Amino acid sequence: MNCKVGIAAYGMTKFTRNDSKIESVLLESVKNLFHNSSNLNQRDVDAVLVSTNNNSKYLGSVLSEIAGIQPKIAHTIESLCNSGTNAIVSAYSYIASGLADVVLVSGAERYDSPGQILEWDNSRGEFKHPIFWASIFTKAYKNEYNVKEEELALVSVKNHKLAQKNPYALSEKEYTVDDVIYSKKLTEDLRLLDCSRPCTGGASIILASEDTIRKYTNEPIWIKGIGQKTTSASFSKNITFSSMESSRIAAQTALKMSDNQPKDVDVMEVHDAFSVCELMALEAIGITKSGKGIDYVKELLSTNNTKVNPRGGLIGAGHPLGATGIAQTIEITQQLQTKANSRQVENPKLGLVHNMSAASTSSTVLVLEN
Amino acid sequence: MNCKVGIAAYGMTKFTRNDSKIESVLLESVKNLFHNSSNLNQRDVDAVLVSTNNNSKYLGSVLSEIAGIQPKIAHTIESLCNSGTNAIVSAYSYIASGLADVVLVSGAERYDSPGQILEWDNSRGEFKHPIFWASIFTKAYKNEYNVKEEELALVSVKNHKLAQKNPYALSEKEYTVDDVIYSKKLTEDLRLLDCSRPCTGGASIILASEDTIRKYTNEPIWIKGIGQKTTSASFSKNITFSSMESSRIAAQTALKMSDNQPKDVDVMEVHDAFSVCELMALEAIGITKSGKGIDYVKELLSTNNTKVNPRGGLIGAGHPLGATGIAQTIEITQQLQTKANSRQVENPKLGLVHNMSAASTSSTVLVLEN
Repeated sequence: MNCKVGIAAYGMTKFTRNDSKIESVLLESVKNLFHNSSNLNQRDVDAVLVSTNNNSKYLGSVLSEIAGIQPKIAHTIESLCNSGTNAIVSAYSYIASGLADVVLVSGAERYDSPGQILEWDNSRGEFKHPIFWASIFTKAYKNEYNVKEEELALVSVKNHKLAQKNPYALSEKEYTVDDVIYSKKLTEDLRLLDCSRPCTGGASIILASEDTIRKYTNEPIWIKGIGQKTTSASFSKNITFSSMESSRIAAQTALKMSDNQPKDVDVMEVHDAFSVCELMALEAIGITKSGKGIDYVKELLSTNNTKVNPRGGLIGAGHPLGATGIAQTIEITQQLQTKANSRQVENPKLGLVHNMSAASTSSTVLVLEN
Repeated sequence: MNCKVGIAAYGMTKFTRNDSKIESVLLESVKNLFHNSSNLNQRDVDAVLVSTNNNSKYLGSVLSEIAGIQPKIAHTIESLCNSGTNAIVSAYSYIASGLADVVLVSGAERYDSPGQILEWDNSRGEFKHPIFWASIFTKAYKNEYNVKEEELALVSVKNHKLAQKNPYALSEKEYTVDDVIYSKKLTEDLRLLDCSRPCTGGASIILASEDTIRKYTNEPIWIKGIGQKTTSASFSKNITFSSMESSRIAAQTALKMSDNQPKDVDVMEVHDAFSVCELMALEAIGITKSGKGIDYVKELLSTNNTKVNPRGGLIGAGHPLGATGIAQTIEITQQLQTKANSRQVENPKLGLVHNMSAASTSSTVLVLEN
């Protein structure tokens, strides 16, 4: 395909622990999106895709009605943590196929999302909370690459620090390595501050076709690469517990589609649901070699380089499942537009979004370019 | 777009009141699909889209794993009764955009689906079950067009009769007009036999690109027209209660895209969630004029013409929400392949699928051609 699909507008809510209704969370980021984009009219929107794990039904049409939109296409997309980037790829395909010109993708979640328990996987026995797979990942990774607890803690230190420059982030505090390694012990290998926190939040984005996008922005950011892979649904089917196969394939596919190499990526959001995931993601994407993720993070910290998870990642920003992939994409968009304020990476040309579900049994990678 | 997307394979389960797990229902129709299509290999499938209102998460990846598929794209799509056709349109767009060549769309529901209660719509007061909007539709339609209870009952008589030739149908009995009008009174204007019944069932379909489809079938059926419209989410926002605006727009769009007129349609599945809906759908699509739907149905009955809801529609076949739109599409595919056995319409060239949600607040229409 030689069509181009770009990001035309976006809006966010602050990530909180508020008890808001899912419809209100969805509407708030959509309102902010329209507020940020004066030329965009409700009448222009051909499709409304909602990304959430919430059990409420018909949210595509409900959001359309309360936002004053009468789209052609409206439905909800769910794939756990990876819902938001799945919805963005679906929006891309509606536009690239010619069925739509302007698509609103709105992700939202409540802090008590039902997507936090991995109910289907009986191979997990009673250990259905994500901290159990994260704990096994952490143990395997530490053993294989001889990484210490206080080194892993640097991921959390970095991301909480970065989040202080993100006005939408859940985290409102910096932490030291000692704070992390002496925070509440959840499992043998996992501390509370190694974990991203579920929260209430929303993020919305408008994708538009090349022909229409200039009506809405003079700084379009283009989706140049898309890679997706599902290897399984069950943690126990992973080939190793210290690497992420679906993320590796998704990154390779997305970079190939955009005709780029890992070294070309100037700024990236990676799915740090837990500390160890940031290192494994950097390695899966090809930013560093296997086992070298921690050296890379140390280098970033010592040079105050914000290129990995500039908004604070999931650990710093919070993790409202259905909104996460969209919030990641908004951050990279702002970076490529040089609009990321104090989080800004110097003059980035190429950005990458990495999102995944359930112990990296499925992953999506997007490559963005200005 | 000048790309072509076609239907390459399909598989069904019988519609029942069984208490099967949603994963088992999904897998059963997928197994039947692979059984029906000897050249199709799990490795060929680029995307797995699940259509359901079930609250279980990550079903796209779960179904992939249990069916032995490792797709690129996997997620769930929900839009109440209209989920299945939304998923088919999404599959079309993944293929037409070039992101996928072969997409599996699998719909399933249990008899106790949470999509049967319209929880979000407070304008309904306590009357959140679909029978309440259907009752108001029925009253409005009967009043406006002077249609009698015993005339409306003919829709149910026809569709239960047709269902007896559909081996997958829930209904196992024919009914007379008297059976219908003396069946249990649910509201002032609605009897039990005017209603489609929720049930447990699954339906799966493979869509493929023009370049690959001949590997799987020598009788591809092409999706030539697509129309979708959401007018609102709330019943009370309907402009009238005796016509279906979103269905009218969707049908007009789909027929225009395929360069056809309503009179060109040789066989169709329309969303008869309740008796009156079949008449309103025929009028919205343009098959008959407003208020003339009942005359059309009488003519079909008197001539044993099976062109409207040949599988028995929702009233005869049963209504497992997420599977319905896919089962409708399979019926029209079989009709166009002249494989519908005793339900076969004579030599049809053009088929139409009409699906909708929540009092026709949203609709999808597909036009299929051989």
